[in-house]
Amino acid sequence: MPLGQRAGDNSEARYCGAEVGWSDDIQNALAFALAGAFDFIVAPLTNPDYRPSRGGGGGKEGGGAPPPPFAGSDLVLSPSQWSSHVVGKMSAWMDLDSTQAVARKDAETTLKQEVSWATHLSLQACLLPTPRPLDCANYARCVNQLLQGLSTLQLWLRIPLVSPELQEVEGTADEEVVFLKRDAVSGRPLHDSWEWWNTFRTLCEHHGQLSVALDITASLPSPSSLKRWLGEPLRAAIVHTSAFLTNKRGYPCLSKRHQNFITTLFNHSVQIIVSGEAFHHVEGLDPTTASSESSANGSEDGNNFPKHPLRPYLEYIAHLYRRMEPPTEQERFEIGYRDFLQAPLQPLMDNLEAQTYETFEKDSAKYTQYQKAVKAAILDRVDDISTTIVLMVVGAGRGPLVRASLQAADQAGRQLRVYAVEKNPNAVVTLHSLIKLEGWEEVVTVVSCDMREWNAPEQADILVSELLGSFGDNELSPECLDGAQRFLKKDGISIPSSYTSFLGPITASKLHNDVKSYNDLAHFETAYVVKLHSVARLAPPQPVFTFEHPNNFAGSSKVDNKRYKKLLFDLPSDTGSALVHGFGGYFDAVLYKDIHLGIEPSTATPNMFSWFAIFFPLRKPVYVPAGVPIELCFWRCVGPSKVWYEWAVTAPSVSPIHNANGRSYWVGL
Amino acid sequence: MPLGQRAGDNSEARYCGAEVGWSDDIQNALAFALAGAFDFIVAPLTNPDYRPSRGGGGGKEGGGAPPPPFAGSDLVLSPSQWSSHVVGKMSAWMDLDSTQAVARKDAETTLKQEVSWATHLSLQACLLPTPRPLDCANYARCVNQLLQGLSTLQLWLRIPLVSPELQEVEGTADEEVVFLKRDAVSGRPLHDSWEWWNTFRTLCEHHGQLSVALDITASLPSPSSLKRWLGEPLRAAIVHTSAFLTNKRGYPCLSKRHQNFITTLFNHSVQIIVSGEAFHHVEGLDPTTASSESSANGSEDGNNFPKHPLRPYLEYIAHLYRRMEPPTEQERFEIGYRDFLQAPLQPLMDNLEAQTYETFEKDSAKYTQYQKAVKAAILDRVDDISTTIVLMVVGAGRGPLVRASLQAADQAGRQLRVYAVEKNPNAVVTLHSLIKLEGWEEVVTVVSCDMREWNAPEQADILVSELLGSFGDNELSPECLDGAQRFLKKDGISIPSSYTSFLGPITASKLHNDVKSYNDLAHFETAYVVKLHSVARLAPPQPVFTFEHPNNFAGSSKVDNKRYKKLLFDLPSDTGSALVHGFGGYFDAVLYKDIHLGIEPSTATPNMFSWFAIFFPLRKPVYVPAGVPIELCFWRCVGPSKVWYEWAVTAPSVSPIHNANGRSYWVGL
Repeated sequence: MPLGQRAGDNSEARYCGAEVGWSDDIQNALAFALAGAFDFIVAPLTNPDYRPSRGGGGGKEGGGAPPPPFAGSDLVLSPSQWSSHVVGKMSAWMDLDSTQAVARKDAETTLKQEVSWATHLSLQACLLPTPRPLDCANYARCVNQLLQGLSTLQLWLRIPLVSPELQEVEGTADEEVVFLKRDAVSGRPLHDSWEWWNTFRTLCEHHGQLSVALDITASLPSPSSLKRWLGEPLRAAIVHTSAFLTNKRGYPCLSKRHQNFITTLFNHSVQIIVSGEAFHHVEGLDPTTASSESSANGSEDGNNFPKHPLRPYLEYIAHLYRRMEPPTEQERFEIGYRDFLQAPLQPLMDNLEAQTYETFEKDSAKYTQYQKAVKAAILDRVDDISTTIVLMVVGAGRGPLVRASLQAADQAGRQLRVYAVEKNPNAVVTLHSLIKLEGWEEVVTVVSCDMREWNAPEQADILVSELLGSFGDNELSPECLDGAQRFLKKDGISIPSSYTSFLGPITASKLHNDVKSYNDLAHFETAYVVKLHSVARLAPPQPVFTFEHPNNFAGSSKVDNKRYKKLLFDLPSDTGSALVHGFGGYFDAVLYKDIHLGIEPSTATPNMFSWFAIFFPLRKPVYVPAGVPIELCFWRCVGPSKVWYEWAVTAPSVSPIHNANGRSYWVGL
Repeated sequence: MPLGQRAGDNSEARYCGAEVGWSDDIQNALAFALAGAFDFIVAPLTNPDYRPSRGGGGGKEGGGAPPPPFAGSDLVLSPSQWSSHVVGKMSAWMDLDSTQAVARKDAETTLKQEVSWATHLSLQACLLPTPRPLDCANYARCVNQLLQGLSTLQLWLRIPLVSPELQEVEGTADEEVVFLKRDAVSGRPLHDSWEWWNTFRTLCEHHGQLSVALDITASLPSPSSLKRWLGEPLRAAIVHTSAFLTNKRGYPCLSKRHQNFITTLFNHSVQIIVSGEAFHHVEGLDPTTASSESSANGSEDGNNFPKHPLRPYLEYIAHLYRRMEPPTEQERFEIGYRDFLQAPLQPLMDNLEAQTYETFEKDSAKYTQYQKAVKAAILDRVDDISTTIVLMVVGAGRGPLVRASLQAADQAGRQLRVYAVEKNPNAVVTLHSLIKLEGWEEVVTVVSCDMREWNAPEQADILVSELLGSFGDNELSPECLDGAQRFLKKDGISIPSSYTSFLGPITASKLHNDVKSYNDLAHFETAYVVKLHSVARLAPPQPVFTFEHPNNFAGSSKVDNKRYKKLLFDLPSDTGSALVHGFGGYFDAVLYKDIHLGIEPSTATPNMFSWFAIFFPLRKPVYVPAGVPIELCFWRCVGPSKVWYEWAVTAPSVSPIHNANGRSYWVGL
């Protein structure tokens, strides 16, 4: 039964499993686990003594030969029991990279038989044994062959969070030596288990049905090293009973770091599986975790099972699940958008729809900042009540910035004459009706015109606009405001007065696979608006391009909004190696003086939901060895009718330049 | 005029150019060079003093602005003169990776104008200035943008064969220090000029219209380092007058190593361009190099030009060209196939055509080896004249191996009874007629049958076959012979008795681009038969799979022809870094005892043309840093109806596994 129920959250993380050993009677093993309040079992499908080369069936492998009788009948469970409650655990003895050809062939035959059997049973997932450290090519080849033919079965590759070799020497003088040990051929760190995974899945070409199940024991790697996994396709975490401490009352519990990691896993829809021998034998239930349902469950089905030995561990996991904060309203709004790729808006070329205006106008955090900024600017501009300030809202939409400006003037006790310039004739209709409704006819003049073409009847003191995209300039705010500044007084104020884009390298295997599924080049050279969630931010974002308004360009020619920036990212030294799937993009805007607004993670405006991040993918993920920096070259290019970005990684390896001439992705002028 | 004329060779290498300085009067500059027997000039198209930011034209860049009057009229030369005799030399002052934005923008504007002008003139090629060492992203971005829009214009990136920094310290104590200097960010060797090229072309995604022009001075890099360039798209070599020595008679000449390199370049269709100040002022012509045409040429057109100062250098180059050995018959046969991708034959699944038999039967070197092997086997088999040996030719085709076997028996003075087994009914028709024609009816029995299905009336002493592909087993010789060995006596002899495949890493940019031009995954996962020519063999090929016949498999099950091999290639230590586009495949077969036959380069059978090499491409070329080995995993997989290979690189970086389940390329059983 689920660990708990959280409003608006239907994540897989609610289900908890138990790893069990080989049993002839899987029916009973499952019933026992379910009676113990687990939701599913991870169970071997085959007698671990079986070896094709020893089998009486003649050992005929491949081809049309019938599978030897290595597993029980499919009738012992119902189809829905198999698919809902059993994860197939592939035989752990298999060693596909053995130096012994017979061992390799036995393993290959068995793996293919077991996966075929699991498919026959309609299981949702199989757990694959841990590969040899960095020596997994034949295993990967075999799994890759299987992956080509799977319909829905997921393969979970079992990877220890900390390699057994490192666990063994933890805290001893040898720890550093083992930690630094490198593979003789590839030069990759031999005991960074993330490397094992990375080698395996690279060989399997990042196949979408191959994911990770992490073994969690008492050891945890360094924080940055741990963080890498959040961008990986993590489906399950196998928490060993050895990972648990004992609390004062004799119950199992986890260290603070373990607790935080498990909670993070819950937030990333990772299922927990409890595994190992029970070290805690507690009679009653811990009063802090017992809920009426779970305590009643043991005898619910009328079973006479003894108490499940792993039950105390499950209850602790359930306790962690239930004590999580419920999602905030903003989180609940965003859950559906998490890691979901959206094409960026093109509000200059296309007209927004009413629904889009509707959504954005609800973002009160944003308008609060604008109102503050306008108020401060007004107060700086004139200190007498009688002078009327000319304020122009360019890109007025359906009027929210007009309202914010008027409210600011009200607060400041100053007079405004407002021009509301809007190019979308549909929005202008609503704008007119708003003004009538609010009785602003004396104060506000609606101008149905593109700001770049409008002949203003007078010069403005203050120019208010919100033409910002997730990456700041990507909705062509610079080009629009350069066109509008003709009617701003020489000493006039632009709100925003500047904005800066930011980029940071991320691991984002889910996003990368989603881009790849389009199966063309163009989608790999496109930026996406996306609520980044299952990603690892490998280094803090860095500023890229800044645009200032008004743009007091001194030269004789027109303003040049082309840009080129080289960024160098150093990963935290405790990260280890990592894979970069692309770059997360953000912006920060200075509205006026110290009043800013933005989504750059370290300074993001709270409770604002108008902008998700932007994602610039890389055509091929870039492997970054431990301690090596990432160099990114980024261009903003401007042509007669469009603006576009180009990007390339130049270290640690060199990528092709993405989006040459804006061939795949551009913003129309 | 061409350097010379070689039978069967129409390579571009016949044409030699001169690099000239900026001149207002390009008409005269060209006439002077042509009168001096050069075929073309490499000339600036623009006044080197021109800078867009300084120009009077307002410096308006991009967009629809008219180009300022930076170059002469296109009328000074005829269209055919422009396209046949002028390579445009782009302004050398351009520094697209300057830290100064103005310098960068001037360079970008100028480069685009000049390339546009060169396109207008229908030039065949432009020479691009040398990029900054490893710091060329903006330059590459600009060139990459231009490459997207070019129709036929080639861009030649000028790269010094030895970096100026290294030339400067050559022979001093600093040489090692400069040689080992690495870029702080990427860690790549800063003064290995191949790295400059590799970074630039990787950013430009290996574009087919971007190639290299190498500057050759007195310094040459180490032999293996030099060899790398042969797999690159090398179009021109600019030989500086400073590269020349002076012979006893006062004439310019080149060192032995330079001579060899220039000759190699000729063989790879690279054009030579002479550049620099004339250091040798010789009056008459060197009698060893003067030919009647070239000495007459000076006044041929009735021009009154003084003798061209670079003429002695040109004559030396012409001398090198003319003294090359004329191509052998085999070479002339092969020239048309050089670097041309062919799909491997599938002789088991498809029937060969008469023309194919015709070509292969002409390969006397091959049948000579077979005849020797059969003779040796016959002599070992019986030592009396009266015993008749049963010899079966399986895959007899139109009879060449039957003939070779009968001739061998004749030479050995032994009696044969021959069965000629052939599955292609069309070949069988011709085989019957051959036997009648030759009067072999008493000795040879024709069997029209697949050897895997034939019920032989008796057991054979000797089984002769030639079912080998370029990669040995790739035409399924193992499967066929396993099927045929039923009718070989227990102690019978198979000719061949074994064969081994070989693989070695190669740089082959031309082949890679040809594969890429198919624009799909399948072609990147296919092996090609190809006469490897413009490739760099980076390390000696290593043995992969060996098959022996008869196959005395001890087990109860049938023979297993699946294979897996991991190969580790160390590049020679003087190579530097390199790019691997794929692997060259070869075979060597032991026919009988010490009589072998094969195409593995170090032991190849001379004058044999039945097999070209086989090429296994990589989907993405793999960069191999200096001193780092390459690890290749290679599989031979066998299914119920097909055989296929899978392959992956696992060091220095990890590639996806190619051709999973034989999805792209397989050989039908």
